[in-house]
Amino acid sequence: MSESSVEQLFLGIDGGGTKCCALIMDAQGAVLGRGLGGAANAYQHLLQAQASIIDATTLALRDAGLPETTMGDLIAGVGLAGVNLPSVFASVQRWQHPFKKMHLTTDLHIACLGAHQAANGAVIISGTGSCGYSIVDNKTTILGGHGFLLGDNGSGAWMGLEAVKAVLLAIDHLGPPTLMQALICDYLQAGNGNLVDKLAAASSGDYAKISRFVLSAAEQKDEIALAILRSGAAYIDALAQALWQAGPGRMSLIGGLSAYLTPWLSSATQANLSAPLAPPEVGAILFARQQTAL
Amino acid sequence: MSESSVEQLFLGIDGGGTKCCALIMDAQGAVLGRGLGGAANAYQHLLQAQASIIDATTLALRDAGLPETTMGDLIAGVGLAGVNLPSVFASVQRWQHPFKKMHLTTDLHIACLGAHQAANGAVIISGTGSCGYSIVDNKTTILGGHGFLLGDNGSGAWMGLEAVKAVLLAIDHLGPPTLMQALICDYLQAGNGNLVDKLAAASSGDYAKISRFVLSAAEQKDEIALAILRSGAAYIDALAQALWQAGPGRMSLIGGLSAYLTPWLSSATQANLSAPLAPPEVGAILFARQQTAL
Repeated sequence: MSESSVEQLFLGIDGGGTKCCALIMDAQGAVLGRGLGGAANAYQHLLQAQASIIDATTLALRDAGLPETTMGDLIAGVGLAGVNLPSVFASVQRWQHPFKKMHLTTDLHIACLGAHQAANGAVIISGTGSCGYSIVDNKTTILGGHGFLLGDNGSGAWMGLEAVKAVLLAIDHLGPPTLMQALICDYLQAGNGNLVDKLAAASSGDYAKISRFVLSAAEQKDEIALAILRSGAAYIDALAQALWQAGPGRMSLIGGLSAYLTPWLSSATQANLSAPLAPPEVGAILFARQQTAL
Repeated sequence: MSESSVEQLFLGIDGGGTKCCALIMDAQGAVLGRGLGGAANAYQHLLQAQASIIDATTLALRDAGLPETTMGDLIAGVGLAGVNLPSVFASVQRWQHPFKKMHLTTDLHIACLGAHQAANGAVIISGTGSCGYSIVDNKTTILGGHGFLLGDNGSGAWMGLEAVKAVLLAIDHLGPPTLMQALICDYLQAGNGNLVDKLAAASSGDYAKISRFVLSAAEQKDEIALAILRSGAAYIDALAQALWQAGPGRMSLIGGLSAYLTPWLSSATQANLSAPLAPPEVGAILFARQQTAL
């Protein structure tokens, strides 16, 4: 029973489109160290995701005062964006990882386990991407989370993308003017003629960074920015309503955009939201322990 | 004066997101041969675009009964999707092409030159992508054409993408049901759970192929399909109105979706549309001859 061994260390990894968090805990659940790595969306960039996991883990070991060789002793719970797609999950599973054991699941799953300490509950993520997830009596439900191009409404990347689309319409005089035009063109050091060129290699993380200009323009009552925010909030409301119907009892809104989005949600959604009990990387360790106990 | 030489042959290339058309004409403007190659969007896939140009030219030479070695004698006018972006234009210009000379411009430019036989005029393209373009007294205007992710409203790829987004909302019960769900899932041999996975590697050309199901569902009065068609048509109407204000005198709607889209356009737009006088590949040769005469 490695989980009951005092020596067994656990690693929790929460990998998303912008960053990767690593947490090392001992068998009693005491935090030993933390580390932060770069983007770790396995769908967008598998090798980068693997590198970010190693980076974050290396930093967490250093933070814990442990030698790098300890990496091979860790039982890792790894929650990654993108592995909801079966083909991506299989690719990550084939990875010759450096850990003692790796238990892989989605970023949503570990977020939900963390937010409700492995009890019934639902989470809505609004960070670089967006998604809804619930666990009710061991039955999981996943809603949305179809990625940057096809969905992720109400997420940072979606918001940034909608903002750029609106700015391009404004530049072409085919849509209404918006304060976001000057804000986004300044930020990207782009003129009206080369905005698309400047974004040619932009990732969903890059678009998520643009979402801040939707928020600031909305504060200045820019109608186009307000419409994007309202549309994103309406989608998150619909997600919340659908998840709540499954009876999770508790529901949390998490991710980098959650604090900004909450005021735009319906009062019904807001009333059903509770603060998460622990972050996703703790959920990743809970997942590893569940799997180790099986 | 190579253009006045009887022996000088001209090649016209019209390269888009789905296919590449090659046309060989002699100095008197007589058609000698035609060839069809694969996708040639220089923004999406530069090497593929170059290969498609060679393929189409090889077939056109064969069709003309000319040896492949003639390729080096051709003065080529090349109109390509994607080269409206300066960085992409520069990449194609660096190509060690096999022709005597290559004059490069956008697919829009050659479409406009062809449609109005090098006189003033405007074109709206609705094929894999969408864009507006006009030439009025040597002044060119370009509108839209920002690519699959950021714009191209009213194009085939845009329509296919909007359809897939609507189907995903329907699958998640976060949006209204639509006939397109069964049509598109059947076409992609996808279940509700793996539609996104099936589309993981889809190009804009692949999405353009999906647009047919928007048209067929709209024929059956599917409200979601009708809304997509109306939204696309409204954008093309706005493009048409903006282009017409510059005074081109003649305007044509071209591209694979044009015939399907025309009935959905406003009567004002429809009244301003004329049939193109010649296809884009002829415009590409007109461009090469203009440049050769300079």
